[in-house]
Amino acid sequence: MSRARFARNIENYIGMLVLPVGLAGPLRIEGTAARGEYHFPLATTEAALVASYSRGAQLITQAGGCAAALLAEGVTRSPGFAFRSLADAARFAAWAELQTAAFAAAASTTTAHGKLTAVRAAVEGNHVYLDLDFFTDEAAGQNMVTLAADAILQDIAARTPVRYRHAFLEANHSGDKKAAALAFARVRGRRVSAEARISRTLVAERLNTTPERMAEYWRMAAIGGVLAGTIGVQGQFANGLAALYLACGQDVACVAESAVGITRLELTEDGGLYAAVTLPGVMVGTVGGGTGLPSQRACLDILSGNGPLSARALAELCAALALAGELSLIGALCAGDFARAHAQRARRLRLARQEVCRA
Amino acid sequence: MSRARFARNIENYIGMLVLPVGLAGPLRIEGTAARGEYHFPLATTEAALVASYSRGAQLITQAGGCAAALLAEGVTRSPGFAFRSLADAARFAAWAELQTAAFAAAASTTTAHGKLTAVRAAVEGNHVYLDLDFFTDEAAGQNMVTLAADAILQDIAARTPVRYRHAFLEANHSGDKKAAALAFARVRGRRVSAEARISRTLVAERLNTTPERMAEYWRMAAIGGVLAGTIGVQGQFANGLAALYLACGQDVACVAESAVGITRLELTEDGGLYAAVTLPGVMVGTVGGGTGLPSQRACLDILSGNGPLSARALAELCAALALAGELSLIGALCAGDFARAHAQRARRLRLARQEVCRA
Amino acid sequence: MSRARFARNIENYIGMLVLPVGLAGPLRIEGTAARGEYHFPLATTEAALVASYSRGAQLITQAGGCAAALLAEGVTRSPGFAFRSLADAARFAAWAELQTAAFAAAASTTTAHGKLTAVRAAVEGNHVYLDLDFFTDEAAGQNMVTLAADAILQDIAARTPVRYRHAFLEANHSGDKKAAALAFARVRGRRVSAEARISRTLVAERLNTTPERMAEYWRMAAIGGVLAGTIGVQGQFANGLAALYLACGQDVACVAESAVGITRLELTEDGGLYAAVTLPGVMVGTVGGGTGLPSQRACLDILSGNGPLSARALAELCAALALAGELSLIGALCAGDFARAHAQRARRLRLARQEVCRA
Amino acid sequence: MSRARFARNIENYIGMLVLPVGLAGPLRIEGTAARGEYHFPLATTEAALVASYSRGAQLITQAGGCAAALLAEGVTRSPGFAFRSLADAARFAAWAELQTAAFAAAASTTTAHGKLTAVRAAVEGNHVYLDLDFFTDEAAGQNMVTLAADAILQDIAARTPVRYRHAFLEANHSGDKKAAALAFARVRGRRVSAEARISRTLVAERLNTTPERMAEYWRMAAIGGVLAGTIGVQGQFANGLAALYLACGQDVACVAESAVGITRLELTEDGGLYAAVTLPGVMVGTVGGGTGLPSQRACLDILSGNGPLSARALAELCAALALAGELSLIGALCAGDFARAHAQRARRLRLARQEVCRA
Repeated sequence: MSRARFARNIENYIGMLVLPVGLAGPLRIEGTAARGEYHFPLATTEAALVASYSRGAQLITQAGGCAAALLAEGVTRSPGFAFRSLADAARFAAWAELQTAAFAAAASTTTAHGKLTAVRAAVEGNHVYLDLDFFTDEAAGQNMVTLAADAILQDIAARTPVRYRHAFLEANHSGDKKAAALAFARVRGRRVSAEARISRTLVAERLNTTPERMAEYWRMAAIGGVLAGTIGVQGQFANGLAALYLACGQDVACVAESAVGITRLELTEDGGLYAAVTLPGVMVGTVGGGTGLPSQRACLDILSGNGPLSARALAELCAALALAGELSLIGALCAGDFARAHAQRARRLRLARQEVCRA
Repeated sequence: MSRARFARNIENYIGMLVLPVGLAGPLRIEGTAARGEYHFPLATTEAALVASYSRGAQLITQAGGCAAALLAEGVTRSPGFAFRSLADAARFAAWAELQTAAFAAAASTTTAHGKLTAVRAAVEGNHVYLDLDFFTDEAAGQNMVTLAADAILQDIAARTPVRYRHAFLEANHSGDKKAAALAFARVRGRRVSAEARISRTLVAERLNTTPERMAEYWRMAAIGGVLAGTIGVQGQFANGLAALYLACGQDVACVAESAVGITRLELTEDGGLYAAVTLPGVMVGTVGGGTGLPSQRACLDILSGNGPLSARALAELCAALALAGELSLIGALCAGDFARAHAQRARRLRLARQEVCRA
Repeated sequence: MSRARFARNIENYIGMLVLPVGLAGPLRIEGTAARGEYHFPLATTEAALVASYSRGAQLITQAGGCAAALLAEGVTRSPGFAFRSLADAARFAAWAELQTAAFAAAASTTTAHGKLTAVRAAVEGNHVYLDLDFFTDEAAGQNMVTLAADAILQDIAARTPVRYRHAFLEANHSGDKKAAALAFARVRGRRVSAEARISRTLVAERLNTTPERMAEYWRMAAIGGVLAGTIGVQGQFANGLAALYLACGQDVACVAESAVGITRLELTEDGGLYAAVTLPGVMVGTVGGGTGLPSQRACLDILSGNGPLSARALAELCAALALAGELSLIGALCAGDFARAHAQRARRLRLARQEVCRA
Repeated sequence: MSRARFARNIENYIGMLVLPVGLAGPLRIEGTAARGEYHFPLATTEAALVASYSRGAQLITQAGGCAAALLAEGVTRSPGFAFRSLADAARFAAWAELQTAAFAAAASTTTAHGKLTAVRAAVEGNHVYLDLDFFTDEAAGQNMVTLAADAILQDIAARTPVRYRHAFLEANHSGDKKAAALAFARVRGRRVSAEARISRTLVAERLNTTPERMAEYWRMAAIGGVLAGTIGVQGQFANGLAALYLACGQDVACVAESAVGITRLELTEDGGLYAAVTLPGVMVGTVGGGTGLPSQRACLDILSGNGPLSARALAELCAALALAGELSLIGALCAGDFARAHAQRARRLRLARQEVCRA
């Protein structure tokens, strides 16, 4: 029974893995697609994670909620072509960039939901990287764009005015499953931003620190990221995204590309705190992948809460969650209780474990 | 009962998430720590993933196995200090770099397993980033180094010859939970490399392509990654690592930092294929995190198979798995059956789903 | 007299700096804009530089010349705007991206040669980076786009539907005077590529090595660059570009942004060598800057040789020169005479110096 | 005569290039090596450059001067070795890292001034990058480390316990002549930092803006750099460094690697401005290269002014100059007179040119 249930999601099935799910929230968000108070199911085995995100979520909600905006969307497949010469490569590139309509027609034979939106060619010597951008509707879309790109390759094979020596369906220029600087210039999935303003009083009461200290921390941490050579500068996007992706049947390997972006904190004119996050590569969907599995679907239902959930709203929720995590983490680092939280929790959990063992 | 079982792994527990586990292998490895044939439990909801890694694993095994080596290990916590002036910062940095023994003593009060191995200070204006490197034994070690660094901060507070304005336990210089160029200059967790040689015949029989074409693909894909601004150049490290981390109770958010590295393919003098992968940031442990949960422990037991499994061996297995994934992916892209594999699988799975629905 | 001559190029004039100019070439190029045999005036104080580039140029010429192509052109200024909120920022961004015609009209009041070609807005929380792309004709164009962007800012101030708190003429997103990954996704000045095929015999005769060894070197050096965290992978673009920029009155500080790109070497099917370079950020012009100064103009005349020289042709010549430098450097490293060349030259020059002193 | 004079600096000599030199300053600095008031000779053909740096220098001086510190020094050569297998590579790496004394002895046969200070090996599959760090005394040192590394390669050839297939003197891992993230983790030449505190009054009087606005600009520009994918975040290091390197006989191609670093601005508690720059890769020397040429030596003498100038002091002066440039540029962008300065200057210069023509 289980084997059959999972047949579309895995091969060589040997059994089930069980992970605990915790609930973080409520988190009030006023986005362009997501609006209201949300509870986030987070699947993780790392102690303190749910508590930290929940603290951040409640802080934001108490401050009146966060704003969020979907800024761009699209998924790229980037086939590569090897030619005999630079001249051939340049001619092909010029031709291909004019084929958007024809390529879109070819792509449409493979999907009713996805649409080719742009074609761009990058020439490097006698090589061409052809970036095919797709709108993927409610799907995260990696498989959709793979099949569509394959159809486009067949169209190219039939109609190319320039013969190539080799064609590869993906030449590693799309940023699939990896952090890439290119995401900031383009988009990888959905680009979202979220912001909140927290009053001086709330920062003191809930985080035991001051906006000045958090702004000072931000300056040091932003440069810390730059010195370490990260792509973007942020704290712990990966933690919340991995837990939410897992719980909601998203492809958790995409954390490699999604956990990239910008966190910015500053002091406001009235002595409060301004905080914003921007994520250029949120890869989520409400259909496909693991979204149809029972516990994952249940988590999606918990998250949607107040009604149907679009992929765009889900992307905005990812940004809001990331913002909650940054505020909580930076608050803890500024109050000096980051280690203490871990230590207390560890102690508490040792006791809990003993009880379990005794039970 | 479940709630109690998960008490040390999560807060606000609301239920369990169930993921299917598939088995990839066998994969023969001759490493410095891992030796023998291994079967990899992979937890994922993405169709084709287990099949692809299994194909790569069997190819390697048929070719006589892969070599692997642990090249470095250590986990860094990087507290940050803000001073009044550059002069104060420079004086503090000079002092701190001489305190390795004292800091190690402070750290040792928090852990019996971890050891401080190095102290390095980076000055930026009146800020200092203090990189504290730890040996973390069988643990992945993020919590261990957090508690140890906290003890060192207390020691610094008591003995510093230069007063600072602010101290933060982590100033975002360690690369924790994010891809960072710094990983190549240092190490993040464990640095491992693996290599295999595949004969021309095997490439033809198992991958339906040629070593020449795979070497050509590598050149294009390596530059594709460079043009996209990735850290390192590789194909799909994230897929295998996420699935293995999940199955084996590792912190899956670490995929953000672990899925970075180098894949290199070249033609050998006898017309075969040489392939190598190098991962500078494998964050794994055999204790702590989710490793004590029942299904995760069972997966670790399946993986260890032939006996006890050390964290070092686990890291080498990650490299071997990554190598298997790269060979299978690149093989599919070169044979032109990457999309076909996805399409066939999708079709097959639609049939399977219909059967499930009918059942 | 000199003071007056330099009045438009410098302030607080105190005297003249004298640099030697050497000639490298001939270099045969078949580009889209540059065609024929060229001699490159290179100003440098680094021994061996001119000799190395000249050797590479002659090798290419002997092999029948290199192809070159101008792939894109444009210079960006990126003003930044700070708003009260993300919502305001997003509204402004949406408005601004529709103002290309109006902004172009505003820009046209400042320049008869430059043209605004595209407007793109990037939102990060309540900040907006507005990328204004210009065609700059025969100029390198940094000043042209500064004045044009200033006019656009005034137009924005008069017509913006959303009030901003701050506006800055350049918010560090354009890549001006620095290496930036963004250059590969866009263009910075002119994007050019050049390639050559060198026969096995020529490699042996002129470089004392083999195509196999050079291809092997390339694989190691490409990954060496990736491991070091460079933007692009190449060897010594900076050497030739700095010497040519200097000689020809270009802004030599632009070497920071121009010395970025890709070098690729591979073995051809007939056992020869294929080599290509791609530079996304060549910042050159035939008017403005130092191009009107006497010795710089003389160098431009030497370079143009066979007739008038356009900025596009100059950019292609930069790529051809870079290719010559890479072939010579890699050849020397493969033949094992890289250090020897330096040592011999040093010895020879010590002798020369003694003669000078005696004279 | 000229030909002979330049014999050790160039080949295929055809004539002299003349560049104007302007003077920026005075700039007061309290460094670890440079102390006093300095006047900077800057060679450039870009109008406004000297004026801008001079304005920044005078601002710093009026504010009491800047502090500066040399934080690290060393130049790396990174030979590469290709082995048959990963096992061979790992064995060689382990051996090589223990040969510091022997390698230093080999190196000492080539130079009386340079010293090998560290040896580090990076293994990637069957390849090894061997980073050889040298102290280069008063020289910038690229040639010195090349000859020394060549001697070490000969020592390795004689004594290696593991046979390699290929050895290359430089495998592109040293960051020579290119911007590289690695510079922050290591050093490239000399790492220096400089800082200044400017009172609110001075900011208003000299820059026509406020510390708040400059701090706001910094936040936007720092993130602008991150979004553009620069290495480090700064504004115009390249302009001042190129002009100073040129004037003082340094290798101006090194601007590619030197114009990387961090600029940080913040509001101080008393409402003033704190500004700091950090440059990890200043490649300068007081001997060798073009330092012996007449006009370059004269410029070095002008710069040293108050006495002999060491390479360390020269490096600190580079940081101080960079700081001056950042303050002036950011001040102009905040006061809204960045474009105006260029326009006025252009107008003034057009007049000047007419006078020249009439003369």
